Amino acid sequence: MPINQSTFRERLVAARHLLADAKLDGLLIFCPENRRYLSGFTAADCSLNESSGCLLISQEAAFLLTDFRYREWALAEAPHFEVQIYQKGLPKLLTEIIARLGLSCLGFETHYLTYCGYQKITETAAAAGLQMQWQPVDNLIEQLRVIKDAEEISLIQQSLAITEKVIAAVGRNLRPGRSEKEVARMIETGLAEAGAEGPSFTPIVASGPNSARPHHHPGDRLIEANEPIIIDMGAIYQGYCSDMTRTFFLGEPDAKFKEVYSLVRRAQRQAEIGMRAGMMSDAADGLARQVIAQAGYQEAFGHSLGHGVGLAVHENPNLSPHQERAVELKTGMVATVEPGVYLPEWGGVRLENMVLIQPDGVQVLNQNLDFYHFGNTSAT
Amino acid sequence: MPINQSTFRERLVAARHLLADAKLDGLLIFCPENRRYLSGFTAADCSLNESSGCLLISQEAAFLLTDFRYREWALAEAPHFEVQIYQKGLPKLLTEIIARLGLSCLGFETHYLTYCGYQKITETAAAAGLQMQWQPVDNLIEQLRVIKDAEEISLIQQSLAITEKVIAAVGRNLRPGRSEKEVARMIETGLAEAGAEGPSFTPIVASGPNSARPHHHPGDRLIEANEPIIIDMGAIYQGYCSDMTRTFFLGEPDAKFKEVYSLVRRAQRQAEIGMRAGMMSDAADGLARQVIAQAGYQEAFGHSLGHGVGLAVHENPNLSPHQERAVELKTGMVATVEPGVYLPEWGGVRLENMVLIQPDGVQVLNQNLDFYHFGNTSAT
Repeated sequence: MPINQSTFRERLVAARHLLADAKLDGLLIFCPENRRYLSGFTAADCSLNESSGCLLISQEAAFLLTDFRYREWALAEAPHFEVQIYQKGLPKLLTEIIARLGLSCLGFETHYLTYCGYQKITETAAAAGLQMQWQPVDNLIEQLRVIKDAEEISLIQQSLAITEKVIAAVGRNLRPGRSEKEVARMIETGLAEAGAEGPSFTPIVASGPNSARPHHHPGDRLIEANEPIIIDMGAIYQGYCSDMTRTFFLGEPDAKFKEVYSLVRRAQRQAEIGMRAGMMSDAADGLARQVIAQAGYQEAFGHSLGHGVGLAVHENPNLSPHQERAVELKTGMVATVEPGVYLPEWGGVRLENMVLIQPDGVQVLNQNLDFYHFGNTSAT
Repeated sequence: MPINQSTFRERLVAARHLLADAKLDGLLIFCPENRRYLSGFTAADCSLNESSGCLLISQEAAFLLTDFRYREWALAEAPHFEVQIYQKGLPKLLTEIIARLGLSCLGFETHYLTYCGYQKITETAAAAGLQMQWQPVDNLIEQLRVIKDAEEISLIQQSLAITEKVIAAVGRNLRPGRSEKEVARMIETGLAEAGAEGPSFTPIVASGPNSARPHHHPGDRLIEANEPIIIDMGAIYQGYCSDMTRTFFLGEPDAKFKEVYSLVRRAQRQAEIGMRAGMMSDAADGLARQVIAQAGYQEAFGHSLGHGVGLAVHENPNLSPHQERAVELKTGMVATVEPGVYLPEWGGVRLENMVLIQPDGVQVLNQNLDFYHFGNTSAT
């Protein structure tokens, strides 16, 4: 089921409350996920300097400004927005609308607007005689997006179900002699066949020593038996992302792999058991980090515990160890829990689930919890 | 063959000449294609607002600034650049280097830098007490990129050869009842198997009435016999893009299809025969547009004749009909020649080749010129 049209109306109401609180007459929205979240318009941006449109909202008005290529698309998907086509560029059309609405303090999102785009818009408005204040705005619509409603959670679950299906099939088809790239291609084909709109990011297939690099790009290396193989992948389904990591081993796991794998899984479980609404994000990270540190692998876990997932595959909240970036976990947030241990030369293990934050704990959204069990290892 | 290291040294020398002409002490390069063109560093940007690094060049220095994930990669690929890793963000590292080099007038590319990124960089520099001038720069390194050298032309030809192989195979496998999405998936799989790094853009598969929309996204519509099917696709090979369109027809073409197809092909040939170095881009567009206008279809050709192709699939020169955007065609430019006629309800025909501009004409880079021939139609 796609998102209900009444949901878009409610989101617009909520956005207007935020505008009022921020004392803005209006807001220009360039972030593709924010644009989709509020309007339902699904077009992606071709590149950072080729936007497929922007929103302009005020207390009374809601415009979707785009070019002729997207006209039918925008009209069909965003009935609550007035679709306007820019023939002579966005700055000119925007200036006309701002003048007509009489907006004097306009917020604009700064993360997806290029400096060049900003210059053109403000210069065109100034040349037309508009006297107004341009207010840089970050993290306004994101405040709404960070809490997922029931429809969004359902779409995320469906996106994750596709990912789980593909990762399980790929796991069964890992063979020594297959290249990382071949496996990555199996993943992309599998996602398309399973009904995904695409991968939520370029799949990571990291074998042997490559698995010690958290962001390895799949290369020509041939997978071997008796080494860790990290697969980190996700789907997009109706715009919603999923993200999942499993570490595989072909052959009989040795003591080292058993130790590291069991440790990472214990760290993950510790976080899943301890996280709940009201906790700060750095404390959540600490739940898993402490387990790994106690086993002597503190230095080997070099990234955050996790990140939010929704219309973007990386969004708030960031489960960072750094106190200065800490945010409070709230009911309805969706995040990954993905501790890892990376040992240069040897390789690495990362295990990633997705969880929904609830008042008294988390709901693990993964259905497939088919981890290796190695009995009682001496990880501590 | 990858690009020779000596080529990167020559490009850096050429870039420094441009810097001197523009009276800049240095230049900050954010555009991913410019970054790759000068340094050889192949990493793409993870997302629109997540850069994998930038270059800072001056008459004496050449830095590649990136984060820890890309360290080994950058060191391996960009030996002529000093690789520096930002631990506490780009703005801080950049400020230190600018201070050390004593740069006072620094150009920065504005097309791939977000407003937010610009703010952080300039504020960090100001807070550190740097008194300097930030000079917005557009189209500087692009002036070098627009003229292709022999190595680049060879890579573009290899990229196009992959595309031709895939489009021919897909053309042979078109069947009534296949969905546009399925065909798009065949294209993507075909590209990967033929050795492409990926598609140069999301393939367009537009059947029947959808073919009247130049930028249609492949959907669930099932292809039928006796209708136009436009396939527009391209490969990336060693960073270099290709772009090609063919229009197919399953069954016995009717008079309308024959008329429109022959007209579009004649318009394309007219441009290919008439284009040469020294001509203005709007005049090149006019060669094809005039043929279509004389047949009474002026309104049905709503886009430019073509665009440059290289490290980016859309780059200079733009073969636009608008005189105010006109540029002179020069020897060594590579562009598409892609007239189209789009008739709402009925559908459309677009045919796209790639050409290399030469002093006395163009070299058509396509090897596969297997167009439909309908004999003498009454297109005029």
